Parts: sequence; C-alpha cells; structure tokens
Amino acid sequence: MKIDGVAYRSIWVDPEDGWSVRILDQTKLPWSVEWLRLADEDQVAHAIRSMQTRGAPLIGATAAYGVALAMRHDPTALEEVCKRLGGTRPTAINLRWAIERMLAALRNLPPEARAAAAYAEAAAIADDDAATCEAIGRNGLPLLQEIANRKPNVPVNVLTHCNAGWLATVDWGTALAPIYMAHDAGLPIHVWVDETRPRNQGAALTAFELGAHGVPHTVIADNAGGHLMQHGEVDIVIVGTDRVTRTGDVANKIGTYLKALAARDNGVPFWVALPHSTLDMRVGDGVAEIPIEERSQTEVTDLTGRTADGRIETIRVVAGSSPAANPAFDVTPARLVSGLITERGRIAANAGAIAAMYPEKA
Amino acid sequence: MKIDGVAYRSIWVDPEDGWSVRILDQTKLPWSVEWLRLADEDQVAHAIRSMQTRGAPLIGATAAYGVALAMRHDPTALEEVCKRLGGTRPTAINLRWAIERMLAALRNLPPEARAAAAYAEAAAIADDDAATCEAIGRNGLPLLQEIANRKPNVPVNVLTHCNAGWLATVDWGTALAPIYMAHDAGLPIHVWVDETRPRNQGAALTAFELGAHGVPHTVIADNAGGHLMQHGEVDIVIVGTDRVTRTGDVANKIGTYLKALAARDNGVPFWVALPHSTLDMRVGDGVAEIPIEERSQTEVTDLTGRTADGRIETIRVVAGSSPAANPAFDVTPARLVSGLITERGRIAANAGAIAAMYPEKA
Repeated sequence: MKIDGVAYRSIWVDPEDGWSVRILDQTKLPWSVEWLRLADEDQVAHAIRSMQTRGAPLIGATAAYGVALAMRHDPTALEEVCKRLGGTRPTAINLRWAIERMLAALRNLPPEARAAAAYAEAAAIADDDAATCEAIGRNGLPLLQEIANRKPNVPVNVLTHCNAGWLATVDWGTALAPIYMAHDAGLPIHVWVDETRPRNQGAALTAFELGAHGVPHTVIADNAGGHLMQHGEVDIVIVGTDRVTRTGDVANKIGTYLKALAARDNGVPFWVALPHSTLDMRVGDGVAEIPIEERSQTEVTDLTGRTADGRIETIRVVAGSSPAANPAFDVTPARLVSGLITERGRIAANAGAIAAMYPEKA
Repeated sequence: MKIDGVAYRSIWVDPEDGWSVRILDQTKLPWSVEWLRLADEDQVAHAIRSMQTRGAPLIGATAAYGVALAMRHDPTALEEVCKRLGGTRPTAINLRWAIERMLAALRNLPPEARAAAAYAEAAAIADDDAATCEAIGRNGLPLLQEIANRKPNVPVNVLTHCNAGWLATVDWGTALAPIYMAHDAGLPIHVWVDETRPRNQGAALTAFELGAHGVPHTVIADNAGGHLMQHGEVDIVIVGTDRVTRTGDVANKIGTYLKALAARDNGVPFWVALPHSTLDMRVGDGVAEIPIEERSQTEVTDLTGRTADGRIETIRVVAGSSPAANPAFDVTPARLVSGLITERGRIAANAGAIAAMYPEKA
C-alpha cells in the first residue's frame, strides 16, 4: 500500500541499522504520519497495549518482532518474554498464534542462535501475513464482481466496520483487500465507513487508507448502517475479525454484531475476512468463551482531533462526572455470518466447513 | 425537573415581560446552562432548526409559542407563519400536530383576538405535554416494578437511546418519565445511556439529566448495546419517538432500529414511550413513508466538547477530506416493538390496538 505514492508495509526492520523495528504510530493518524522506532520488548508491549499498533494480524507480527528484539538482549528469557507479550491484549487470537509460532521455532535452539532465528521467523510471519491478505483479496473479489455484474454502471456499496485494512495487517488488509483489488480492477466501488466508536478507527484509519488509495467512501455514524440497509444502500458487509471459533462465531470490534443483525434483517450478505492465524479451534461458543477486553472509560468520554486552526486537542464529550463503560469487542454468532473469506477460499461459517478447509488445525 | 435544586420546565413565558419565551440552549449543554430568550418567530425557527431546542414533544410546544410570538406582530400572517414553522424539521410529527392545533384554535378568530388566544393555546399545549408525560411515567412504571420484583436487590438495567427525557419535553420526559418515577419510588435503577452519535444527545443531555436527578447511569458507545444484551446486562429498552404510524412503526433517532434488532435477538423487551401527539394516523408504512431528515455532515466529522483546562473546542475527528453522510432518524418496524407506553396506558404496537386506544384519531 502507498502513502503519498511511496509503498510501505505497516511494520519493517530498519535497513539502516538492520535490527530496530519501525511501525506507524496509529494513535497519531490521520493527523500525522509518524514512524515509531521500537528497540526492545517493553516498547513493543507498550505499542500494542496503547494501540500505537493494532489490528489482529498486525499485532501478531509486531509481537513476533518483539520476541526478536528481546532475543538480542537476553536469549535465555524466551518463555518469560513470550508470556509477557502474549498478555498485552486478550481478544485477538493472532497474538497467541504468533507467540506460539515463535516459541516453536526458538525453544529448541541454543541461546546464541535464537536472535537471528527470531528475526527470520518474525520476517516469515510478516511475509506470510502479506501473502495471506493478498490471497484473501483475490478470494473476496468475486463477491464484489458478482454484485457489479448484477447492477452495472452504479457503484457496489460495501459497508465495513472498524479498520481491517492495510493498517491492521502487514499489507493489503483483510476486509479491505477485496475492495482495493476491485477498485484497482476498475469496478465502481463505494465504501460506507462506520466511524467505529469509541476509538474511531473507521473515521481515522479506514477513511485515511481509502482516501490515500483513492477509493470513494463516506463516513457514517455507527448508528446509520441499519437505516442504509433498510433503504437498499448497502450491497454487502465485509468486516475483519479478531478471533473466529471452530464453529464460526466471530469476535470483532464492538458493534459488529449490530450490523450483522441488520444485514440479516434486510437480506444483505455479511462476510468476514480472515487469515488462518485468526482461527481459534480451541473455542466453540464465542459469546460464552471469548474474553472481551474492557478498555479505559476515557476512550468513551474523551476524543482527540484537530481544530480548524490545526491544533490537536482532546475534549470531553460526556456530561459532568458521568461514568462510562467500554467493552472493546463483541461476538457475532455464526448463524448471522454469510461466510468467511480466507486465503484458501470462501467457506460457510460452520464447524464442518472450517474443519474441511483447515484439516491440519481440526 | 430540577437543576441545582430549582424546578424548571423546558420552555416558559418570561414572567417579567409576560410575552417573551425562554428555552434552554441545548447546544450549550452539558457545559453551561443558558436560558435563551426568543422574541419572534424567526428566532423560534432558528432555535428548532439548529437544535437549540429539540425532542419531538418540545419542538411542538416551541413551535406553538412561535405562532404566539408571530401573532403579536402580525396576526394576519397566521397561515404563512404556520407553514414556515411547520417546515423547520421534517421527521417529528408533533411539530405538525402542534401547528395544526394552533391553526384550528386561531383561524376563525378576528386578527385582534389571535395573540392572546395563541398564548393561551400554546400554554395549553405545554400543560398538556407535561401532564401527558407524567401519565406516561405512571403507565411505564409497572414494567420496571415487575422486573425489580423478579430480581430483588440488584438494579433494574434500562437501556435508552438519544434523549427522551425532561429536555425533550416540557417536563418529565417520555422514555425517562418511568425511570424518574421508579427512582423516586426507591426502586434500584441503573440506565445504560447510548451516547447517540453523531450529536451525542445521550452523552450530553441524558447523562446530564440523569446526573442532575441522581439516577445511576453509565454512558456507552452506541456499538455496545448488543454485547450488553448478549450478556444479560440489559433488562429492558425504553426509547422515545419522533413519529409512530397507525400500524406501530416507530421513527426515532438513528440507531434505534439496531437496538430493537438486538433486543429481539436476545429476548429483551423493547418499549417505546410516546404522547398522543406523536401518533401519525396518516402513515401506514413507516420505513417507506416517513421522511428522514438528512443533516449536515459536519455533525459527523466534527465534535464539540471541553478540554481538560475548561475551554470549549470543536475538533474534526474524520480523516482528511473524507465526506460523511448523516441520516438523523431511522424507522423500527412494529414487529420489533414489544409495546407502546402512552398517557392512556400500555398497548401493543399494531393498528388494532392503536385504533382501539385512540378511537378519536382512527
């Protein structure tokens, strides 16, 4: 993906020193593009926890590089570092997947070999994610082409929630990958971007990405999607996910479930895009079993943005001393999901289809 | 209702001059309590259009006083003034109801008698609204008492969307009236307050009202309600409405429909509180026929609030030059509504029940 015409990945090892890790500070977007330098695992843990970096697949790759940075300093601390980094956020399963992959690759190596191997494994995880997301794009594209064939000469209207684009992955994105490919292929695409309160990843990040790539889009309050569906203004919903159970339940940003309900009520297809690393075959009942992160109430009560004269200000928008609650994710039951778009193809959101597509995980 | 222990109505004629109309400037809440003085119908039209005053029942009373102010200046302009004030906002039917009531009361009077009669009729509309809302509170209270009886010693959790309280009416509110009565009667009540993007009437107004009255409440992003219902954290949803069709379809603030879907999916009762003036017997199919106001996109892209050091600032929260769309209302089909709480009692949301309860309107 490109910013001002320059191609970037969301995470990369600085070629000048060959070891430090660079990430976009997503808490500064869309107002400024700042590439943070991460030099040790504490900085990686802080970046994940504070959401300087975010998005389930990207969190996995970032944690992998965090292990690599730690191995430079103390290769005997592998298990301890993995435990600490694995606990930075609870809902996205890719974090655990990446940590387990690092552990498997490094555990049986002598300490002096671990740093180099860790960088190689983290790079492989990042490359895997980029290739996976590109394949998700290819596998999602026919859904959009089919709608375009049915209604020629008018835009295909896609609704998405939160940010499941380039910024949430190493490259391409998950839910946005088919959209970028459709746009690049000349399909008329228009994206309804849920602003995605409370952290506004839609308004700040998805709108930024789509705008930078030139994809037509319109930001809406999270409240608006149902109304748009009632009036035929949404052809398809595509979202990303932080964890999919073996039965097809989908954890994703808070509010996703409401859009799935509205899609079902209005006959709008509701698709979920995910890489293999987002599958959690250990969980059956998503609503009962997936831990839902409760984040700070200031994310609800306070907002940061830019004044007309260019200052960045943080304002409180909630009355007086009223408290707030801030569950960060919800779970959409598989019964509301039209299907899953994976790097291997499109499948139904149920245990049989998932096990058949990923027999090595079943 | 009280602010700092002083009882107010949301609209009143200034006793000092006997003719100017005072309203709370709701665009300044919750940061400052400013009573605007309205001296002519242009100021009334501006106050309604800019949402200095808002809430379906209160808009009706305010427009009625706008007619009274106009009659002081030119009692021959009755039809013209009524047409202008009637067009200030399209979705709330109470506006049309109040204007039609004023026209009926004044049309056949000689011009010199119209000003005094207009003030009397506007006062009657305001008194009617206050009494109606109090009756709505009495009729909604048993719903909360019944839940409290089923789960003693823990709070009854009510979820509400937007502001349908004292600030949306002349006094008491619609959806909040039963909540105030339950709280005053000693029932343990806790309210989940949807922040209600884009204008944040929940975060700014409902939280302000409930806080001022001492009712325990928690502000949540609009996205959170479905998740809370999935986990048994919501016992009942009560919302207000801007228009109810003769078939029971409910127009209300954008996002209400999503909460109704989640309530249905989780077996949570979804009730709608309304005065008689909100019924529109001329409309059958709410989704197809009720006009939905499209408001300025800056309501989505920009937010106003208070900085930590007390300044009021407006910030942009949407990336770059991304456009926004802002439908202000949606329609919840009657099939998702558990029932209507009116000043005459509780009824099912269907044509037969509505016609039986309001035979004079049928």
